[in-house]
Amino acid sequence: MSRTVLTPRAEDFPRWYQDLITKAELADNGPVRGTMVIRPWGYGIWERMQAGMDSRIKAAGAANAYFPLFIPQSYLQREAEHVEGFSPELAVVTHAGGKDLEEPIVVRPTSETMVGEYLSKWINSHRDLPLLLNQWANVVRWELRPRLFLRTSEFLWQEGHTAHADEQDAAAYARRILHEVYADFMRTELAIPVVPGRKTRHERFAGAVNTMTLEAMMGDGKALQMGTSHEFGQNFARAFDITYTDAEQHSRLAWTTSWGSSTRMLGGLIMAHGDDAGLRLPPSLAPIQVVVSVVRDDDEGRPVSVARGLVEELITGGIRAELDDRVDIPFGRRAVDHELKGIPVRLEIGPRDLAEDRVTLVRRISSGKQPHPIDGVLPAITTALAEDQHLLYSEAETRREERTADVTGLDEAREAARTGWARIPWRSVGDRGEAELGESGITVRCLVLPDGAVPDTDDPAVEPDLIAVVGRSY
Amino acid sequence: MSRTVLTPRAEDFPRWYQDLITKAELADNGPVRGTMVIRPWGYGIWERMQAGMDSRIKAAGAANAYFPLFIPQSYLQREAEHVEGFSPELAVVTHAGGKDLEEPIVVRPTSETMVGEYLSKWINSHRDLPLLLNQWANVVRWELRPRLFLRTSEFLWQEGHTAHADEQDAAAYARRILHEVYADFMRTELAIPVVPGRKTRHERFAGAVNTMTLEAMMGDGKALQMGTSHEFGQNFARAFDITYTDAEQHSRLAWTTSWGSSTRMLGGLIMAHGDDAGLRLPPSLAPIQVVVSVVRDDDEGRPVSVARGLVEELITGGIRAELDDRVDIPFGRRAVDHELKGIPVRLEIGPRDLAEDRVTLVRRISSGKQPHPIDGVLPAITTALAEDQHLLYSEAETRREERTADVTGLDEAREAARTGWARIPWRSVGDRGEAELGESGITVRCLVLPDGAVPDTDDPAVEPDLIAVVGRSY
Repeated sequence: MSRTVLTPRAEDFPRWYQDLITKAELADNGPVRGTMVIRPWGYGIWERMQAGMDSRIKAAGAANAYFPLFIPQSYLQREAEHVEGFSPELAVVTHAGGKDLEEPIVVRPTSETMVGEYLSKWINSHRDLPLLLNQWANVVRWELRPRLFLRTSEFLWQEGHTAHADEQDAAAYARRILHEVYADFMRTELAIPVVPGRKTRHERFAGAVNTMTLEAMMGDGKALQMGTSHEFGQNFARAFDITYTDAEQHSRLAWTTSWGSSTRMLGGLIMAHGDDAGLRLPPSLAPIQVVVSVVRDDDEGRPVSVARGLVEELITGGIRAELDDRVDIPFGRRAVDHELKGIPVRLEIGPRDLAEDRVTLVRRISSGKQPHPIDGVLPAITTALAEDQHLLYSEAETRREERTADVTGLDEAREAARTGWARIPWRSVGDRGEAELGESGITVRCLVLPDGAVPDTDDPAVEPDLIAVVGRSY
Repeated sequence: MSRTVLTPRAEDFPRWYQDLITKAELADNGPVRGTMVIRPWGYGIWERMQAGMDSRIKAAGAANAYFPLFIPQSYLQREAEHVEGFSPELAVVTHAGGKDLEEPIVVRPTSETMVGEYLSKWINSHRDLPLLLNQWANVVRWELRPRLFLRTSEFLWQEGHTAHADEQDAAAYARRILHEVYADFMRTELAIPVVPGRKTRHERFAGAVNTMTLEAMMGDGKALQMGTSHEFGQNFARAFDITYTDAEQHSRLAWTTSWGSSTRMLGGLIMAHGDDAGLRLPPSLAPIQVVVSVVRDDDEGRPVSVARGLVEELITGGIRAELDDRVDIPFGRRAVDHELKGIPVRLEIGPRDLAEDRVTLVRRISSGKQPHPIDGVLPAITTALAEDQHLLYSEAETRREERTADVTGLDEAREAARTGWARIPWRSVGDRGEAELGESGITVRCLVLPDGAVPDTDDPAVEPDLIAVVGRSY
């Protein structure tokens, strides 16, 4: 199989990434700077991501809703840090319906302010809390250095917004989303061994009192932030007057959270699992798990008809299978395309295979290629898919472990960040060390406790034990 | 049960509609004129609509993709009729990332132009055709007289876009979507007896050579356009240079279609099925099909525990059931709320019911209320849901038939349109009659053949047989 379709990763990782997205037909650049067209193969993966996340979000008790794209500019201004953080990235509508608008309208960069306005309307009594909402939507943040999936001027995401009666309940829910929704989905389905942790004060979301994150190591050792969960304390409740009457009839300010994950996860998937032959999709997210590919047909059309029967058998067995009977296209070219697209298993059938009642089973992830009797191919594939889902995870985990160094000083951290991450005591970094590392393009990805747990916000008791995970990032 | 929560339909239908949306917590007005917040109950219905439509769209061979929200203004101008049709409704971004833009950006009102640009890039050979795409997205059309769900400045929809090698294939596909996707979904799941037909030249989509529609009669006798399917001939192919090489290596222009359905269907659902007590949801789309409602608990908590067991039994039986054990809220108030929200079946359980090992089964659609032994409640409910799905459809169909008059002249048509629709030979109307009716606020909803079939575009052979369905509309 040709391995030269893509720029090799070792030669130029960013170029490999761009090549892969184009050749696997995942996405295209849009005509307006920084925007993106998600093509059917990319969107099919995103649909499976949405399904996996959505069922977990609902299991965590949140209901989907939809808030408007257009936010009055004045809303943004009600929370000082929030407007400061987002102002440089806003797209503004000044003209609509043939007229200039009296108040400019902002295209939502995120919806805390819009949702805040409605939480205030909908929440009256403590019985209305917690109020747990989520929306699937597009958002716009003007990007100066756009990159497909990773940083686009428009992207698709889910954003959860919740209001709670007290600080503990809000904190517990923000963590529940981090672990039960995000970490679980990313580990189980994306097959990415994410590291959950707390962001430093410097890296917090605009307006948050605590931002928690999930960090993943990409194939080049850099970090990618895969999702975040924020506590806002009472900042937005104060700005939007989100109050409730408690059981004793006192009026109280609510506590809010928000949490988001986006099409950026597609970039993470590509960079965590892709190899020089293309994408490698975790079987649980692959729109097509098995392609049954006819090498060439014979005069009786037997290979095509056997292949079609196999596809039906696999689909009945609960596997997402598809037939490739385009025998007028050279077989090698089709195989390269299936590899580029990352389809986990390929079953090849030609007249020679049929003469021996077998197929050739090619595994994209474990790279195995072996003949298999036609009978009993379903259980073999079911096993292969499950094994390869785990294999992807453990490969990514091994890389992360091998490329993470425990260090004690900033120089060692800089050295480690050339190829991966460093774990360094936070007390050896601090605000000052964070700024120094920043000069070398290195950021504190997150703070964790020695046992891997996510530390509470600004808890002085754990402060001396905090470990900073640092590295370069996307 | 109180029937006075809503303004009665007979008194003021538009006010009833608005009351229902507010009190059933379906949606709220957004802060920017004409925008809308879809609340969880409304969005839950929309999610089921999406699922029902999406599976049919996929079964028709189209794949989902995603195109950018922002369209360069110049794209719109490439198809003359298209830009003329949409210009008055556009929202324009003139400022982004802290700077004034060189070329203004249009927030998509529909995506023919954007998709056209990419079809042109992606299509090379006849092997690439047909190319069948769909997207779920938000679009913006500035509305002067907005009304929740029916006409909002931003709405959610699916828009399909396809390219074909010849006119026949394009025409057949546009019809396949009309019948197999739209009509089937609307009849089977929305329980609305839609009338498929062809729009007059005057009512065509901007840039189309043929627009087909599905028209539904609402509770007040007015019509609502529930979805449309368009043939563009080669208009967009010419404007965006969508060409392919045929089997003989000649370059040919493709033929394109588009088709859309939106959150407007929610408005149709409300106005087709709602009554003076609130919404009536078709069981197949109800987010909650059965609410098990505890009238009051006893000291041992038996009613709540039996109710919880029943909910589990129903869920295991494949029914979307939920428990209402909020016994601190007056039972009557909760019942009114369940009726407002249109939950198809309510099971009431109190200590008195339990003493007799029974529950009270209340059906929202057929308005029945009767005791039922706790054993065997699952099959009773399954039957009730299926019956009531059909009942909703036949009620709507009966209304449509009763309120549709076969007439021969324009005066009679005007008279019929006071309470419903008229069917009138198209040769008695024509362009001139269409304009005359328009002066009375009456439009030609669609043209059909005597047997109900959808006539081909501008086919002179069938012209004398065409029947115009006319009425007032939303």
